[in-house]
Parts: sequence; C-alpha cells; structure tokens
Amino acid sequence: MSTAPLSTADPNGYFSRMLRGDVPRPPVLNLLGSRILAVDAGQGTLSAVYEAPDGFRNPGGTVQGGMLGAMLDDLTASLVDATLRSGEAVVTLNLNVSFLRPAAIGPLRGEARMLRRGREVCHVLGTLLQDGKDVATVLAVCKVVRL
Amino acid sequence: MSTAPLSTADPNGYFSRMLRGDVPRPPVLNLLGSRILAVDAGQGTLSAVYEAPDGFRNPGGTVQGGMLGAMLDDLTASLVDATLRSGEAVVTLNLNVSFLRPAAIGPLRGEARMLRRGREVCHVLGTLLQDGKDVATVLAVCKVVRL
Repeated sequence: MSTAPLSTADPNGYFSRMLRGDVPRPPVLNLLGSRILAVDAGQGTLSAVYEAPDGFRNPGGTVQGGMLGAMLDDLTASLVDATLRSGEAVVTLNLNVSFLRPAAIGPLRGEARMLRRGREVCHVLGTLLQDGKDVATVLAVCKVVRL
Repeated sequence: MSTAPLSTADPNGYFSRMLRGDVPRPPVLNLLGSRILAVDAGQGTLSAVYEAPDGFRNPGGTVQGGMLGAMLDDLTASLVDATLRSGEAVVTLNLNVSFLRPAAIGPLRGEARMLRRGREVCHVLGTLLQDGKDVATVLAVCKVVRL
C-alpha cells in the first residue's frame, strides 16, 4: 500500500474535508468500497482501492462491467475533485470504458492520471487492476462547475 | 407501461428462462432494480425500468453517473441476450456513456435499440429517461461468445 501523502489543491475544499472525515462520504462510495490510497493534485495522479461484493455478480459470476465503470467514474472524478477550489464541483460528461478481462468478486485497485487539466474541461485516464492485471480502463471527460 | 410481448430468439436460452423465473436472476439485477417491460429480439428493441436507491447518491445528492452506466450496461447486454441461442453468452467490450442531465434517486426507464447484430459483434444504443427526459445514453459494443 502506498504511503504517499494526500496532496490536494485546497485544504478547505470538499474533497480534502471528506478525506479528513469532516464531511460524510456520499453513499455511493460505501457501495463501491472506495478508499483513496494516495493523491497528488499537482502531479495529477491518484490511487484507490475498491471492493466488489457478491451483489455485483453478473450471470457469468464475475463483476458486472457496469459496476467496474462506476468504480472508474469515482476514480477519475476523485482526481478532478482533488484539484478543485472551494465553491467548485466536478460533473462527468462522458465515460468511455473498455473491458479487458473479467474481474472476480473482491478487491480491485484503481490508478488515475490527469491527461489534461483545462480550466473547465478535464481529460482523465483511469485503470482498474486485479492481481496486477488490467481489467478495465476508462477515458473520462469531466467539467469543472462553479456552485 | 408497455404490454408488448417478450419475444426472444430462443425460448430455451438463458434469457428466456430468466424472464420466466426458471433460473435465478443474477444479483446485480436486484441491485439496479432492473425489470424488463418489453423485448423484441427480431426488431432489436428492449424496454426496461430501473430503480436508483439512496445508496447510489453522489456528493451532489443525485445518482452517481457510473451507476447510470451500470444500468445502461444491463439494458444493452439484455437486448443482445435476447438474441442468443442456447450455449451462447454476451460479453461487453466497450461502453461509451454520455451524461445529459442529472438523475434523481428513484425510477428510470431504459430503451435499447440494436444498431447492428453481427454474427459475433453487436452495436447497441441505449438511453435512460427520467420524467420523459433523456438523462444518459450509451453506445455499447458487445461480443457473442460460445460457452
């Protein structure tokens, strides 16, 4: 597990306060078993873990692809979140998800990288891994909005 | 609600048996509150409803986009499922999801249409609606595999 610091753009922003436990986590993070391991807003990188429970099974007994997409949405939006100032929020415009291998019920690791942090539009790459192998990857297009 | 029949390619296939309740639904369908309203494998159309519970909330209090993607994955893969013969299954290769409007916690309606049913590769369009308005749309690329 990474011991890198949690480095965000604004210590008073929503994401920083959530990481510190000052504001409650939104319910979907608990559904996905999401936990941030490391984030560096300046470098544009983020690592997280997820947990796929039995309830995510598809007819084949593996994790439904769409639920991997939900993890990748959280992963990439979280990296944008880490770059925000107070009074800003992120909305996802598009997720292009490719499924590379089946994923078993259990833990997954996510790695996100900012391709371009525009003033309003962000392009983020995200990958989910299991047992060291890529299982799904996403190109996310997000927009920074003023609240 | 549509009263159209449930018309599938193979009455002995997995999807038909699941619709009849002869085999258990995979857990992820219960998570997403998925229910098929109408399907016509020959015409390449499918309608379904979904239910987003409180647990799908993002920090903004609306449904996390990725969970809408999971519904769209189920919607489009179900239409391919309805065209399969016994001994075949569908795997999703790619989902390109666009988010058009925020979706509130509660029911959503899904409409899928087969763009092209190749022998192995299927292109399917899917849309989720709430209160009559499009909230998210997907182009899914799926592959038919022999078991």
